[in-house]
Amino acid sequence: MHILIIGAAGMVGRKLTERLVRDGALGAKPVKKLTLVDVVAPQAPVGFTGEVTLETGDLSAPGTAEKLIATRPDVIFHLAAIVSGEAELDFDKGYRINLDGTRFLFDAVRAAHNTDGYFPRIVFTSSIAVVGAPLPFPIPDEFHLTPLTSYGTQKAICELLLSDYTRRGFFDGIGIRLPTICIRPGKPNAAASGFFSNILREPLVGQEAVLPVSDDVRHWHTSPRSAVGFLIHGATMDLSTVGPRRNLSMPGLSATVGEQIEALRRVAGDKAVTLIRREPNEMIMKMCAGWAPGFEAKRARELGFTAEASFDEIIRAHIEDELGGSL
Amino acid sequence: MHILIIGAAGMVGRKLTERLVRDGALGAKPVKKLTLVDVVAPQAPVGFTGEVTLETGDLSAPGTAEKLIATRPDVIFHLAAIVSGEAELDFDKGYRINLDGTRFLFDAVRAAHNTDGYFPRIVFTSSIAVVGAPLPFPIPDEFHLTPLTSYGTQKAICELLLSDYTRRGFFDGIGIRLPTICIRPGKPNAAASGFFSNILREPLVGQEAVLPVSDDVRHWHTSPRSAVGFLIHGATMDLSTVGPRRNLSMPGLSATVGEQIEALRRVAGDKAVTLIRREPNEMIMKMCAGWAPGFEAKRARELGFTAEASFDEIIRAHIEDELGGSL
Repeated sequence: MHILIIGAAGMVGRKLTERLVRDGALGAKPVKKLTLVDVVAPQAPVGFTGEVTLETGDLSAPGTAEKLIATRPDVIFHLAAIVSGEAELDFDKGYRINLDGTRFLFDAVRAAHNTDGYFPRIVFTSSIAVVGAPLPFPIPDEFHLTPLTSYGTQKAICELLLSDYTRRGFFDGIGIRLPTICIRPGKPNAAASGFFSNILREPLVGQEAVLPVSDDVRHWHTSPRSAVGFLIHGATMDLSTVGPRRNLSMPGLSATVGEQIEALRRVAGDKAVTLIRREPNEMIMKMCAGWAPGFEAKRARELGFTAEASFDEIIRAHIEDELGGSL
Repeated sequence: MHILIIGAAGMVGRKLTERLVRDGALGAKPVKKLTLVDVVAPQAPVGFTGEVTLETGDLSAPGTAEKLIATRPDVIFHLAAIVSGEAELDFDKGYRINLDGTRFLFDAVRAAHNTDGYFPRIVFTSSIAVVGAPLPFPIPDEFHLTPLTSYGTQKAICELLLSDYTRRGFFDGIGIRLPTICIRPGKPNAAASGFFSNILREPLVGQEAVLPVSDDVRHWHTSPRSAVGFLIHGATMDLSTVGPRRNLSMPGLSATVGEQIEALRRVAGDKAVTLIRREPNEMIMKMCAGWAPGFEAKRARELGFTAEASFDEIIRAHIEDELGGSL
């Protein structure tokens, strides 16, 4: 099996690559070849005995998509996107990369399908940003698309394209609407939503973290480990019974900031909690008010997608995956 | 006031032009100039004393949109599209005209906005084809986008673009999700949904019509007169309180074919009804099963959009507008 990962240098892309290398297979089929692509050079996976191709390329540049699928990968994970903040600041770039790039990929696959019957599985990462306030809680699977960012609009449009191209038989697509990923490994970043991870990750290693919102802010989370699990399940599940509605809100954990903090206390003790410094930020509080508090995700659960049931589990997954298993 | 109608040669475009000429104004403002555009030459409106420009042009051709807005029309009605059947048969053409053409228009207006602050009202005609079965009845305003045609997908994508471009402040957009228009004037056409109009229009003038489905098929209708009314209201209403959700399911009339026929009997008598010939068509019955039975349209009604309350009214509007007021 030949797997193409577009956006392989990002956090989810790297974790997905690691998982595929560790498993040596996708479902029942051995992974013989990995093609890893990103705008910055992806790293060669450690410990993989199959063939690896590393590519640097911009999917929104004409010809890139055709080149990437020239060797007809069996499964394509399309994770590449510029993030919400950047897509809001640079309107043209957001539409070019997040919308046109995806459409170029879908059209290249369609052309290949029409030429030689090529029919890959495409696993596309969408986002909870396809909805925006006012929102019910929990948000049902049948809730309409109400993005309040250009990023969310671009993801919603790609969801529609994915469904239509799949319905027309050009490829077998599935859209994975990811919750906010928590605990995001690495350094604190400037994303407005960064604090959800910062207030856990930093105290776990004895560092201070800033909390800019009140404890009652509710949001929708999943661990990096579960996010990778969604992508693997999306790539291997039987899609023949799923029908034309191909974009699924993933399961996750709806929790308030206060509940996150109490989980931190249970796992890491009072001392960790004292490292959270409250610095209310009006702008971030305002943005938060528009974000999804949680989804029903009934359909995805019925289709076998699973996620953590408590924030304690999410924190323990982080300790296992990022901190060598203990504090 | 200068009004641009893109898709002016179509049925709705012609009726909208007639109404604007008859009113001589849009809301409180006199119509001084009309620019009418279509891929086939639009006819000059009869009885209009203002300035008229007739253009032949394809919105999906580069440069057309820039040319159309060069004189900065105050209101743009964007009605141009290729229809559902053609968009399904010719994938490229559907995406080029229904999606790219609309995006070219929105981007041309955005560029003009960024250059000189141009800020028109854009009234876009969407369609109930943005949803597809399985559907609840009535379909709530917050129901998700589930198109089962490429046409419906293209309309849904344009709705998302319209909302995002409006949210970003490039123009003041409103999307009008039209019900099926009934009674469609003119000759019977090959559209699968044509029978909804045929079974009324033809018997009203003593002609036979074929009914390919059973009497219990329920669908969602509005008259051409009401459709034009929606567009006028969309162009004149105060949008400042509407918020970022700019695409509205219009009110309409949910009726079964049987209810249509009984209305025909009340308005035109038993003899008219005997001109309906039942010829069940499996393919059309199958397609019908996926169509919208009716919408709640709560938000649109609250915002002042109105439609007929009975099929008798719809038939009488046809007699007034198309048959000189009597049978």
